[in-house]
Amino acid sequence: MNEQMIVDAIMQKIKKSMRIDLDSTKKLMEKVEAHCKEKGLNAVICVCGPEGNVIGIHVMDDAFLVSFDVAMRKAYTSVAVKMPTIELAKIAQPGETFYGVDGVDHGRITIIGGGIPLTYKGRIIGGLGVSGGTSEQDHEAAEYGLSVLAEVMEA
Amino acid sequence: MNEQMIVDAIMQKIKKSMRIDLDSTKKLMEKVEAHCKEKGLNAVICVCGPEGNVIGIHVMDDAFLVSFDVAMRKAYTSVAVKMPTIELAKIAQPGETFYGVDGVDHGRITIIGGGIPLTYKGRIIGGLGVSGGTSEQDHEAAEYGLSVLAEVMEA
Amino acid sequence: MNEQMIVDAIMQKIKKSMRIDLDSTKKLMEKVEAHCKEKGLNAVICVCGPEGNVIGIHVMDDAFLVSFDVAMRKAYTSVAVKMPTIELAKIAQPGETFYGVDGVDHGRITIIGGGIPLTYKGRIIGGLGVSGGTSEQDHEAAEYGLSVLAEVMEA
Amino acid sequence: MNEQMIVDAIMQKIKKSMRIDLDSTKKLMEKVEAHCKEKGLNAVICVCGPEGNVIGIHVMDDAFLVSFDVAMRKAYTSVAVKMPTIELAKIAQPGETFYGVDGVDHGRITIIGGGIPLTYKGRIIGGLGVSGGTSEQDHEAAEYGLSVLAEVMEA
Repeated sequence: MNEQMIVDAIMQKIKKSMRIDLDSTKKLMEKVEAHCKEKGLNAVICVCGPEGNVIGIHVMDDAFLVSFDVAMRKAYTSVAVKMPTIELAKIAQPGETFYGVDGVDHGRITIIGGGIPLTYKGRIIGGLGVSGGTSEQDHEAAEYGLSVLAEVMEA
Repeated sequence: MNEQMIVDAIMQKIKKSMRIDLDSTKKLMEKVEAHCKEKGLNAVICVCGPEGNVIGIHVMDDAFLVSFDVAMRKAYTSVAVKMPTIELAKIAQPGETFYGVDGVDHGRITIIGGGIPLTYKGRIIGGLGVSGGTSEQDHEAAEYGLSVLAEVMEA
Repeated sequence: MNEQMIVDAIMQKIKKSMRIDLDSTKKLMEKVEAHCKEKGLNAVICVCGPEGNVIGIHVMDDAFLVSFDVAMRKAYTSVAVKMPTIELAKIAQPGETFYGVDGVDHGRITIIGGGIPLTYKGRIIGGLGVSGGTSEQDHEAAEYGLSVLAEVMEA
Repeated sequence: MNEQMIVDAIMQKIKKSMRIDLDSTKKLMEKVEAHCKEKGLNAVICVCGPEGNVIGIHVMDDAFLVSFDVAMRKAYTSVAVKMPTIELAKIAQPGETFYGVDGVDHGRITIIGGGIPLTYKGRIIGGLGVSGGTSEQDHEAAEYGLSVLAEVMEA
């Protein structure tokens, strides 16, 4: 093993700890899907990287048509503002500091609950968006996803 | 079993044979992904229903950024025109009958190879889009996907 | 020196006093960036001309993704309505005279604070947009930029 | 220094070697700007990260209005397809494998020369887009930028 090979191996490992990969994304979506099924939600589940690009989307059978776009926005928004979309909603009400934020960034922002940054070992490694019920139901499902992230990353 | 239950059971079965569901979509994407890996392609794989709405997307690690949008378009286009996108490309060249088609339908059409209708028992039950290499490489991967569709549907 | 040369020299001088140029833009962005660093903000800083076209954008490391678009809108809005965006926000609340303004002009308007017209010797020579914190924090940073404008223009 | 601090320090260094930061971006834009001045081009210069997000844009005085959008597309396209835009142009002609590619990805792709991936130590750490002259002139300026990248990164 020469120096370059060692550097490459370390880089690969660090890269994985900086951005969720497709393998972990699929495992995470699987778990969130099962959770939604239990809760009676036909949801769309989306995971993106910390830079906002989509890694995976699953549309559960009989999901709302509108949920495809909304789930993508929720995942994106959570990393774009580094907070859950349900939190952003609070400061985006009329008179509040971010009122109007849901119209910006080429229509990629949403203030509907259900988006959550995927924080792992102190770093945002991606964003998760769930759309299938109310803001509160979707946020609960996204929080569930975050709660199983470590398990998924270490599987 | 009352009449309603019988009708529902039949409806469910018919529905499944008219549109690929998320379960089969995931199995199909898994197979196409493994095939792309073998071929050395980091692809984006997208499946949509016969009505054009996305069911699933997987973005392989290190895929081209442009491939996310292109894979979605390929899946959509294949059901929108009911032919592989590589076939559409032939009749969309300057001077040909569908020249200009890639600018229509709110920008959802592409004439790059790699989209293929998912035909099962004589019906188009969805569309598959693969984007990761040349038109020819992506078409080959999409054709592989079609070749394993029956197996996936009957799993 | 012939007549044409004299006219050209005067025109050049007048042009500079009518629209901030790239050289001054870079100096101004540098100062605002340093100010944001001090305040602990990872901001996007944008300067546009009085006609609304961008002259420069700097994205500080670890800035919010959403800030790129928002900073551009803030700079544009400040010259488009000839007032700080934090002022526009007040008259764009539900029931107020400009309610709905953030949806117009092909989506280039924002009512989030942090945009300010760059007024020099009584003329708007450009617009400055800062996005990295709350409306109030961003407005403060934009005001700082305006406060050092004369110094930058005369450097 | 505890373990976490060491890991953080290493992460920071590696992060820098994976994505060009604002500091290096400004130095690179400065050099390309000087080069364009020498060549008599009033160009727009844009640098983005390997994931496609803009880091910096400078619009030289008297640049073409159209160049702002084009320079951004060139930077984005170079990382989205991992090749110079002048190369993409060749395989995007009628009858070629990527014919139609310039209409995809939400209008972010261009096949005009002047975009080049910023490859440093074997990794794409960003994209550079220059727009101010012909495809060939802009490509030459972008290649100049790539030729001074190592110097800029090690400054």
